[in-house]
Amino acid sequence: MLTNETQLRVQYYETDQMGVVHHSNYIRYFETGRTELMRRIGLSYKDLEDSGTAMPITNIEVRYFYPAHYDEVICIKSCIKEMPKARITFHYEIYNEQEKLLASGSATLAFVNKETGRPQRAPEKMTQILAEYFIN
Amino acid sequence: MLTNETQLRVQYYETDQMGVVHHSNYIRYFETGRTELMRRIGLSYKDLEDSGTAMPITNIEVRYFYPAHYDEVICIKSCIKEMPKARITFHYEIYNEQEKLLASGSATLAFVNKETGRPQRAPEKMTQILAEYFIN
Amino acid sequence: MLTNETQLRVQYYETDQMGVVHHSNYIRYFETGRTELMRRIGLSYKDLEDSGTAMPITNIEVRYFYPAHYDEVICIKSCIKEMPKARITFHYEIYNEQEKLLASGSATLAFVNKETGRPQRAPEKMTQILAEYFIN
Amino acid sequence: MLTNETQLRVQYYETDQMGVVHHSNYIRYFETGRTELMRRIGLSYKDLEDSGTAMPITNIEVRYFYPAHYDEVICIKSCIKEMPKARITFHYEIYNEQEKLLASGSATLAFVNKETGRPQRAPEKMTQILAEYFIN
Repeated sequence: MLTNETQLRVQYYETDQMGVVHHSNYIRYFETGRTELMRRIGLSYKDLEDSGTAMPITNIEVRYFYPAHYDEVICIKSCIKEMPKARITFHYEIYNEQEKLLASGSATLAFVNKETGRPQRAPEKMTQILAEYFIN
Repeated sequence: MLTNETQLRVQYYETDQMGVVHHSNYIRYFETGRTELMRRIGLSYKDLEDSGTAMPITNIEVRYFYPAHYDEVICIKSCIKEMPKARITFHYEIYNEQEKLLASGSATLAFVNKETGRPQRAPEKMTQILAEYFIN
Repeated sequence: MLTNETQLRVQYYETDQMGVVHHSNYIRYFETGRTELMRRIGLSYKDLEDSGTAMPITNIEVRYFYPAHYDEVICIKSCIKEMPKARITFHYEIYNEQEKLLASGSATLAFVNKETGRPQRAPEKMTQILAEYFIN
Repeated sequence: MLTNETQLRVQYYETDQMGVVHHSNYIRYFETGRTELMRRIGLSYKDLEDSGTAMPITNIEVRYFYPAHYDEVICIKSCIKEMPKARITFHYEIYNEQEKLLASGSATLAFVNKETGRPQRAPEKMTQILAEYFIN
């Protein structure tokens, strides 16, 4: 299992008139979380895309327990639980500063060739790097 | 079963550098879809909130099949399948102009007292109106 | 002078915890306004981009007078006051249902070749169509 | 003159299909910039709002020179040039990692009583703190 934590501060423009973070923004927090997890193990998403692989989302789910508030520093825990094949799934938990679990969820992404738009397997660089975490 | 269709046009600011609608915006399309379904049966979400009930999201899920593109007119089909009790679930399908299914999903919302923040049951006005669709 | 009016309904996700539309969204309303003005005169921005011209923003200004609120139908008045050369400027006014002026502003856009990223003059199709409104 | 620099990384959801950051997001970067400037001098915007003062935007302007790209770390330079009275103006410059100026602009904010919605002068705490920078 491969995990990473990213902190970020809730912005005013992320709140809505309920006085809390609008629920759609958690999907964006997830995106930041997986980008930073990948960066930490040497897999920049930008580099992947530059080298011809895009990773469109195929499934998202979120369970909301408590709202995040303006100006709080939240912690996004991102996790890969198994070796990707045709798809890769990231699991997430978002905590506030009191370590209360605000939301959890997952995002599954496919791999597609940016030129043709056709599905492909995980790029070799990714499987090589991830193999260090999942095989052995 | 109670359904409603809402058309809207994809905006440039909703796209991302993959050249398609960013996946987080589907959550916002769902919000528009359920607001319009509720409005059609005489249940303005604004009125509900003004009369003291907020409806925070507790669960979201989305399955993405094909991307939506800039300037397309998409159709959001929103649906309530059963009488709400402590929570209400909306089901969604999003289609493009060629009636291709782009995404489907659901959103579950709780009812809370806006003043106290405490859970409550569905407001009486809502259950009265929905009863016409689900009972008999 | 060439003007167009577009109505749209304020969405919940556009509000912030001040209980009104977040100011950044007016920039997005402007975008919708100019897209619809252009469409009405036969100049789809999508077609322009598909035929190789992108129109990046070079200047934006907004003056905010009164806030827009959730679920209001606002009216975006968009206007071109002169024939574009190297750039085109759109002027905007946003009104609520009581015809109160909520905000005004402008957006100036350049023309660039999508392949090379280099500045170009307004595409011929655009100048031909606009000439009908500004010359004579 | 009072200045502050804030770094942040461009997120994928901030890009559009032109392959660069959508122009509306610079308004949001400005917001992050002034929040962090205020925090550094002991003026949390959250505290201001909690103690009854809201600061709605009255004017925004942005000049765009070069686009920001996905995954770049940009630097927001925020600056207050004079003592606020009925309003406060922040000036901004946004740079990329190569210290190229991408955009500049300003935002002017009013002070309003959160309860009544009526304009007020800058809160005393703010004028006391800012006086240290502007008087003498």
